[in-house]
Amino acid sequence: MQVAVVLYPGFTALDVVGPYEVLGRLPDVEVVFVAERTGLVRNDLGSLLIEAMATLDDVTSPDVVLIGGGPGQSAQMSDGPLHRWLRDVDRTSAWTTSVCSGALILAAAGLLTGRRATTHWAALDMLTEFGVTPSRDRVVIDGHYATAAGVSAGIDMALTLAGLISGDDVAQTVQLIIEYAPEPPYHSGSVDSAPATVRKSAIEILTA
Amino acid sequence: MQVAVVLYPGFTALDVVGPYEVLGRLPDVEVVFVAERTGLVRNDLGSLLIEAMATLDDVTSPDVVLIGGGPGQSAQMSDGPLHRWLRDVDRTSAWTTSVCSGALILAAAGLLTGRRATTHWAALDMLTEFGVTPSRDRVVIDGHYATAAGVSAGIDMALTLAGLISGDDVAQTVQLIIEYAPEPPYHSGSVDSAPATVRKSAIEILTA
Repeated sequence: MQVAVVLYPGFTALDVVGPYEVLGRLPDVEVVFVAERTGLVRNDLGSLLIEAMATLDDVTSPDVVLIGGGPGQSAQMSDGPLHRWLRDVDRTSAWTTSVCSGALILAAAGLLTGRRATTHWAALDMLTEFGVTPSRDRVVIDGHYATAAGVSAGIDMALTLAGLISGDDVAQTVQLIIEYAPEPPYHSGSVDSAPATVRKSAIEILTA
Repeated sequence: MQVAVVLYPGFTALDVVGPYEVLGRLPDVEVVFVAERTGLVRNDLGSLLIEAMATLDDVTSPDVVLIGGGPGQSAQMSDGPLHRWLRDVDRTSAWTTSVCSGALILAAAGLLTGRRATTHWAALDMLTEFGVTPSRDRVVIDGHYATAAGVSAGIDMALTLAGLISGDDVAQTVQLIIEYAPEPPYHSGSVDSAPATVRKSAIEILTA
């Protein structure tokens, strides 16, 4: 099974590395980081560079496609090579998936029209512009599309997908290997639970 | 504030990228990925390459040092340039931190002697060989040392550290930005909660 993880400048690292750490541990899996060009791709914070080892053209029929989000997503919303590639590989993929604002790229490419999907809480409303029904669920499965909420939600999405692909036993084994028994020291991970002042600060940073 | 994230061949990606995503979002922070040599460093699964932009010698007084774990940890247990560097920077660091089996490297370098620390559940017993008291807590703070349990626990450790470094409001804001309100689809993230068959499978994979 081949998993293609899409990189573009300004991606958020955890969006892709979280699910990678899960999907990359499934049996008989090959993961390839792809981008329009091979070479280093810089993340949103500017301090992390991941190597894209294949171009989009090199990868023609991945079983799973994963695209993350991040501030760089806004430069990937026009039709072009990435959208064409997403539409092409989506015809044969078992799963086409996104984390965070990566859902907006899938939506802009026309893949989520008429579907339910989720994305980062601050971007949820934007899904409607593409004929997508926004969901506040952390992980949404609709047809062969799996979308995750913001950044860290990709881990939950990937474990859900791992169960669907390889069965519950394998997914649980991966969960134990990555010791995923989260204990956040605060309860501010969702807009519903975060104090209003924290919500305000986050929106200021995200829209700066 | 400078955060140095150590890379070595065979590191586990989420060990470092999880806490990076949190610490990299603190105010006035500069993160640098360091290794013995600059250039690409390959992870344990073989499919992810992260660029080390500085050598150990380039980074002489980071405020925070972070070292992750992974199968590559076993090749980093002998005294040498990495251990010497860890001891050097630890003299002035505000925080010296590890995720997963990265704690064994800190321990082997002599930094955790007489301390409480945690590591990946499958490696906990090994801490005692270095005069360290193993803890089954997910995050352990002892002096200026912060250690996290396996892989995904680095996110919880980094949020705890974020609160200590930048205050609760900032830490909570970062938590909301990365939408860290985890909903694992299974309850197999710890040895206590995982079914015995899952625990057996995980141990087989980890000791293969």
